[in-house]
Amino acid sequence: MPDIPAFDPIFDRELVRRALAEDIGRGDVTTQATITPGTRSSARIVAREAGVIAGLPIAALAFAQIDPNVQFETLVADGASVTAGTALARVIGDAAALLTAERTALNFLGRLSGIASQAARCVAAVAGTHAQVVDTRKTTPGLRLLEKYAVRMGGARNHRAGLDDGILIKDNHIAAAGSLTLAMKRARTYASHLLKIEVECESEAQVREAIAAGADVILLDNMTPDQLRSAVTFIHEHAPAIITEASGHIGADPEKLAAVAATGVDLISLGALTHSAPNFDVALDFDS
Amino acid sequence: MPDIPAFDPIFDRELVRRALAEDIGRGDVTTQATITPGTRSSARIVAREAGVIAGLPIAALAFAQIDPNVQFETLVADGASVTAGTALARVIGDAAALLTAERTALNFLGRLSGIASQAARCVAAVAGTHAQVVDTRKTTPGLRLLEKYAVRMGGARNHRAGLDDGILIKDNHIAAAGSLTLAMKRARTYASHLLKIEVECESEAQVREAIAAGADVILLDNMTPDQLRSAVTFIHEHAPAIITEASGHIGADPEKLAAVAATGVDLISLGALTHSAPNFDVALDFDS
Amino acid sequence: MPDIPAFDPIFDRELVRRALAEDIGRGDVTTQATITPGTRSSARIVAREAGVIAGLPIAALAFAQIDPNVQFETLVADGASVTAGTALARVIGDAAALLTAERTALNFLGRLSGIASQAARCVAAVAGTHAQVVDTRKTTPGLRLLEKYAVRMGGARNHRAGLDDGILIKDNHIAAAGSLTLAMKRARTYASHLLKIEVECESEAQVREAIAAGADVILLDNMTPDQLRSAVTFIHEHAPAIITEASGHIGADPEKLAAVAATGVDLISLGALTHSAPNFDVALDFDS
Amino acid sequence: MPDIPAFDPIFDRELVRRALAEDIGRGDVTTQATITPGTRSSARIVAREAGVIAGLPIAALAFAQIDPNVQFETLVADGASVTAGTALARVIGDAAALLTAERTALNFLGRLSGIASQAARCVAAVAGTHAQVVDTRKTTPGLRLLEKYAVRMGGARNHRAGLDDGILIKDNHIAAAGSLTLAMKRARTYASHLLKIEVECESEAQVREAIAAGADVILLDNMTPDQLRSAVTFIHEHAPAIITEASGHIGADPEKLAAVAATGVDLISLGALTHSAPNFDVALDFDS
Amino acid sequence: MPDIPAFDPIFDRELVRRALAEDIGRGDVTTQATITPGTRSSARIVAREAGVIAGLPIAALAFAQIDPNVQFETLVADGASVTAGTALARVIGDAAALLTAERTALNFLGRLSGIASQAARCVAAVAGTHAQVVDTRKTTPGLRLLEKYAVRMGGARNHRAGLDDGILIKDNHIAAAGSLTLAMKRARTYASHLLKIEVECESEAQVREAIAAGADVILLDNMTPDQLRSAVTFIHEHAPAIITEASGHIGADPEKLAAVAATGVDLISLGALTHSAPNFDVALDFDS
Amino acid sequence: MPDIPAFDPIFDRELVRRALAEDIGRGDVTTQATITPGTRSSARIVAREAGVIAGLPIAALAFAQIDPNVQFETLVADGASVTAGTALARVIGDAAALLTAERTALNFLGRLSGIASQAARCVAAVAGTHAQVVDTRKTTPGLRLLEKYAVRMGGARNHRAGLDDGILIKDNHIAAAGSLTLAMKRARTYASHLLKIEVECESEAQVREAIAAGADVILLDNMTPDQLRSAVTFIHEHAPAIITEASGHIGADPEKLAAVAATGVDLISLGALTHSAPNFDVALDFDS
Repeated sequence: MPDIPAFDPIFDRELVRRALAEDIGRGDVTTQATITPGTRSSARIVAREAGVIAGLPIAALAFAQIDPNVQFETLVADGASVTAGTALARVIGDAAALLTAERTALNFLGRLSGIASQAARCVAAVAGTHAQVVDTRKTTPGLRLLEKYAVRMGGARNHRAGLDDGILIKDNHIAAAGSLTLAMKRARTYASHLLKIEVECESEAQVREAIAAGADVILLDNMTPDQLRSAVTFIHEHAPAIITEASGHIGADPEKLAAVAATGVDLISLGALTHSAPNFDVALDFDS
Repeated sequence: MPDIPAFDPIFDRELVRRALAEDIGRGDVTTQATITPGTRSSARIVAREAGVIAGLPIAALAFAQIDPNVQFETLVADGASVTAGTALARVIGDAAALLTAERTALNFLGRLSGIASQAARCVAAVAGTHAQVVDTRKTTPGLRLLEKYAVRMGGARNHRAGLDDGILIKDNHIAAAGSLTLAMKRARTYASHLLKIEVECESEAQVREAIAAGADVILLDNMTPDQLRSAVTFIHEHAPAIITEASGHIGADPEKLAAVAATGVDLISLGALTHSAPNFDVALDFDS
Repeated sequence: MPDIPAFDPIFDRELVRRALAEDIGRGDVTTQATITPGTRSSARIVAREAGVIAGLPIAALAFAQIDPNVQFETLVADGASVTAGTALARVIGDAAALLTAERTALNFLGRLSGIASQAARCVAAVAGTHAQVVDTRKTTPGLRLLEKYAVRMGGARNHRAGLDDGILIKDNHIAAAGSLTLAMKRARTYASHLLKIEVECESEAQVREAIAAGADVILLDNMTPDQLRSAVTFIHEHAPAIITEASGHIGADPEKLAAVAATGVDLISLGALTHSAPNFDVALDFDS
Repeated sequence: MPDIPAFDPIFDRELVRRALAEDIGRGDVTTQATITPGTRSSARIVAREAGVIAGLPIAALAFAQIDPNVQFETLVADGASVTAGTALARVIGDAAALLTAERTALNFLGRLSGIASQAARCVAAVAGTHAQVVDTRKTTPGLRLLEKYAVRMGGARNHRAGLDDGILIKDNHIAAAGSLTLAMKRARTYASHLLKIEVECESEAQVREAIAAGADVILLDNMTPDQLRSAVTFIHEHAPAIITEASGHIGADPEKLAAVAATGVDLISLGALTHSAPNFDVALDFDS
Repeated sequence: MPDIPAFDPIFDRELVRRALAEDIGRGDVTTQATITPGTRSSARIVAREAGVIAGLPIAALAFAQIDPNVQFETLVADGASVTAGTALARVIGDAAALLTAERTALNFLGRLSGIASQAARCVAAVAGTHAQVVDTRKTTPGLRLLEKYAVRMGGARNHRAGLDDGILIKDNHIAAAGSLTLAMKRARTYASHLLKIEVECESEAQVREAIAAGADVILLDNMTPDQLRSAVTFIHEHAPAIITEASGHIGADPEKLAAVAATGVDLISLGALTHSAPNFDVALDFDS
Repeated sequence: MPDIPAFDPIFDRELVRRALAEDIGRGDVTTQATITPGTRSSARIVAREAGVIAGLPIAALAFAQIDPNVQFETLVADGASVTAGTALARVIGDAAALLTAERTALNFLGRLSGIASQAARCVAAVAGTHAQVVDTRKTTPGLRLLEKYAVRMGGARNHRAGLDDGILIKDNHIAAAGSLTLAMKRARTYASHLLKIEVECESEAQVREAIAAGADVILLDNMTPDQLRSAVTFIHEHAPAIITEASGHIGADPEKLAAVAATGVDLISLGALTHSAPNFDVALDFDS
């Protein structure tokens, strides 16, 4: 059994159970038919390409849920940067259990390592600047916490985890509330005093209003690097405590990221970290 | 409420509910704080790029679960090929409901339309040949049926849905059973007479053995186009009823796909259909 | 704890938990009131009649869920043919746990052994012929996989497990599709290439059409032995690869089964295997 | 939608949902492949033999859960005694919905009507006597409340529903407690004052002790009719307020039942009411 | 892991899991941020006031669910009467686990010990009389069985656990049935013979009718001590087997309780036992 | 059906369903036995004492879940201050539905209105000062969001909802991290930039360190009014942006609250708001 707590919102046992149930359905008929009960196997999980690993505890859970007697030995830690061919874990146990859990374990590992690797590339692109790369809520339905974990494993940071642990007032909220100032005021009154308030601004006028209204964070959306630099400078001069964030179709392109980072903005949020990270190629190789 | 049956394994209400719960947590504090109860809005879901759409019934479910009084009018059907700027649906109702459901609805729609678009590109790449593009079990944990639905919307076909609705004997099964012939025999005895048996072959010797053992389908794994063509020709000559399938790191590259299709193989299975499809860009635009 | 994997679609822990909850409700008041905590007992599960046993792992699970410290030692394996008076298992542990789990464990065991015994009787009735006895989807709601397991323990075989792992085109499908040929064609296009197609036929004309349309299996419904023999002979002559199945109110009567088997049909499907198997009499005898 | 409350422990929506999910799995591929969307059908549920009906609300739920637009018109009420050929309900709606829900609906109806018919036969066998036929806890795991409902529909009565809504002290409880008297005393102290106490007795000495200890009900187990008569007479003379119950391998044989009933016992409990009732033959006939 | 059975309707693991999930949400960010993984701590659960303890097994479960390696040593048993400053349990393990589970464990313990202490005070108030203090169904939604357990730990007794394990005919039932006598008769016919029947009476006429109709228990509602004494005396004279119960805004005041108890009534039911028991002050003190 | 969205974390349908299931078990035998099906009743929910109401939507849900045809007309809104005798809602429908749902509806309403009334009393006690009354995480397990809703209905404000939507560094976190400064730094690095950081301080030295480390909020625990005033003054002078909070056994006593509020502290957090609010007396009166 992997060495993670029994109750952990990130490494959610029920999520793994659903994934296994989805793949196995009423039973792995091929394995049941062809494998003699009691056969034992050993295998290694191997990276087929270079990247940053995330999800080994989930892969371990997949095997453990099929059969708690499967031994799963982690050879590298989540967050490790590996080359193609690196063995990530060693798996020993009932051959049928290994074959039945294989695809589910690899599907998690491929997706999460894909995100960690994408995050690591983006973080590298802004190296040497002040900017931090953060994720968004554009995650795969059902995998939010795991994908945000993978983002951290890749060296980037997390934005809010959901609609309840941070306040981000967008254009539509402002329109419905009547004004940015009014929306800010209501948010302060309603929410716990432990939540900061971020406001999306698309113009200098809005930035001024946000500063006056006491925003804690200003999101600068869909701006060119020049517009961004100008807005960031303005905010730094008039309200140095305010955190600045850039967003909007920035994508994972290193040059574009570097240009945005060079504007002095504090945070760059990227949907592409999670929603368009290509799968990381990983396989289970049985010892012959 | 979208016009889909109440009980549908594909458009799984519980899946949508979990996705909403994951995003909303204890409540959408921004919306609750800033939007006056009773405010109504109308908005359109708009494609920001060209592609094939999948997931509108799921998007509709997301809004309906937040508030069954939201009107969701589909403007194009799933499977439609659209251009950038096309309005996909019209959404009218309580402003808070629209704002709260927005991200979950778009996360489903972006992912599924991304897959449908990827599938459509791959199908186009083999046009004019006999080959059919099929998916694999390399899907996002928890989203298997939805992603396989998106594959169909993109014009490709589905391989088995899980380990229980088809028999696919791989190298490790053969090794553990002792021989391909023995594995085949056990599978025939164990499984329902309604399941066909597919065997993975990596050499001509294995192909011969599979034919002799009565395989219904032969999977030709990790072969070059030339090897594939040779194997397919051999099978067609010796056992014309057998279906042939090519797999193994083929990817979504059109030229490579065309080359594989030209070998005469019946099916080409592609993990990249589902595990590496880039997100489709789609947004909810509120009417001002 | 019984030696079965933690995740097993057949020996479903949640099913056992629901059965226990259903029986125990808010607590076994009699046992709580009368048994001094810490009292230990030993008991044996004993067959009260002759038959074939199925369900011991489920009985073990029932005790284990009440108290994981109960020792459950299986004395015969599922599938064993036993005489009246045979001890099937030995159970030792907390007296209260044994008393509370007793009825649930026996309810499973009585029902599943009843089915296994029924299956064994039917298999015996066709001994010496080519025919195989298979079950149907006429199972107890919620117990499908367990009952199909019991059928296998009794020596019979399983038909498809559900509506998703096999295609069986019946008269109503044909009527709605317009023709048998059209229904067959649509089925080939829609379904995974790993599912065979079975067609229900009630006349020689339909049999001819099914053969022409490429059916993999033909279900001959509600025919007399003479009609069956004629149809089977016809199919063997014209399409020897096609599997034949007889169904329709055949029941568990040995003579009738023998007559059907003598027609040369490949499979005989029997709802009575599962829906009308009498309970197998089994008890928990405490050591005095 | 059937006219039953949304929250009803007997007509449990979740139970029906699980039964449908078990049968449908990932989808009814035959129906999806062959039936043109939008096709409508009408059909009748027809009894194929004579008996007492139970379970129509559950059958209705099965159709309603697949598609709430299916019309389900009940033609006879649960509890009705019908002849072979009687139409029990009319079902009109989407053809695919009817075909997909058919088996689940009939599986419930066949089992529950089988039990109701069995109960009615047993009640008829004791007609003219004082005795009442009651069920036991020997029910199908997961279907307890439905099966007890079917028993009532057949005219028999229910014993306790579980281990928590009645106290029944058996031999093992007595042994573990030290004496019948002590077990009775503890039960009175522990349990709510609204639960009666029943004690299993196998001898006249035990009957005397039970009377002295203040039993509310005495269960006379595994006695011959003569022994029963003697015990009942003794109890009536010495403690007329005590209810008497006969149990133990009595079975559904009418003559045996009549003999037991003639002893003057108040209640006859029969496991065979639920665990060995043969399925009731019922079908869904589509209108051509 | 606490030494309680795995399946226990009272110490319900799922209830504790929901409570933890409710508090932890997506993760204990403070602890994750500030505590170095691997840090170990020891702490004691300490009573901050005098009272009767209930809920230690639930507190143990809370820690065990977060981390099964946490050692939880109970220092006093549930039901113990303690003074302020008494250490109730010792908890040793991963510091993060202790900090994360702390509040949930204490919330259960504070509430349940509050109820046990309240019950003990009420029981003390009627000491020396014949009367027993019982609870009601006025419990916290979701915590019924735990709160009734706490009542027992405080030395009081439980009334029925729900609407299904006892019959209590109230004024509205009588009004709807037409008469008390008719309601009694229907209840006898419908319910299992193991449930007693209690009837609420508000006048001597009703008491007479209840006696004649064969009530097992009579609930005397909203009467003064004098009225109660008169009714109890009347019942004792005319039907000594009937149990009497007083209810209705009696509250936890010792003098009022003593006055009611002095009337000779058998049971006094108190909503205030559960719905208005003040929280018991208890804390987790880390060893420095 | 009450006019609340289908998906609402606060008015959680599943919570109400569990509460009903807990009370009803296998069925309301009294009502089923005594009430003729089809009987209709009307009734009013009436306050039996003065206070502030919370929970009417939950009460409505309880009736709606039993029978969606029950009409529930709210006569006062949640948050209303009412006198004894005020009718809160009118309920009309099937008599059995009303009787079965009654206790669950009232249990929610009594508890939540008890909390709202307690909150209103505390808010009144600090009227005229700058201080705001806030709740804590000392809520009933499973009812967190409802109880925090009731707190708002009573006019007080909510502290964080759980361990994930705010950072509160307590003494044990500081001890484990090594220093307050280090704990603060780690928290800033780990958590989303939208969460503020609160630090518990017990001395002026800690207050200085917290200010220097950039705390957003300072919790002043277990201080006398004089100590509090001194600390608040110090903070206002040295870091006017910091929010101050007082906590620690303050309780609901008005005079003590007024004294704390007079110190100039911004927030006063009170566990007694939720964990020790006496039940609000409310009843369902049937129209005769």
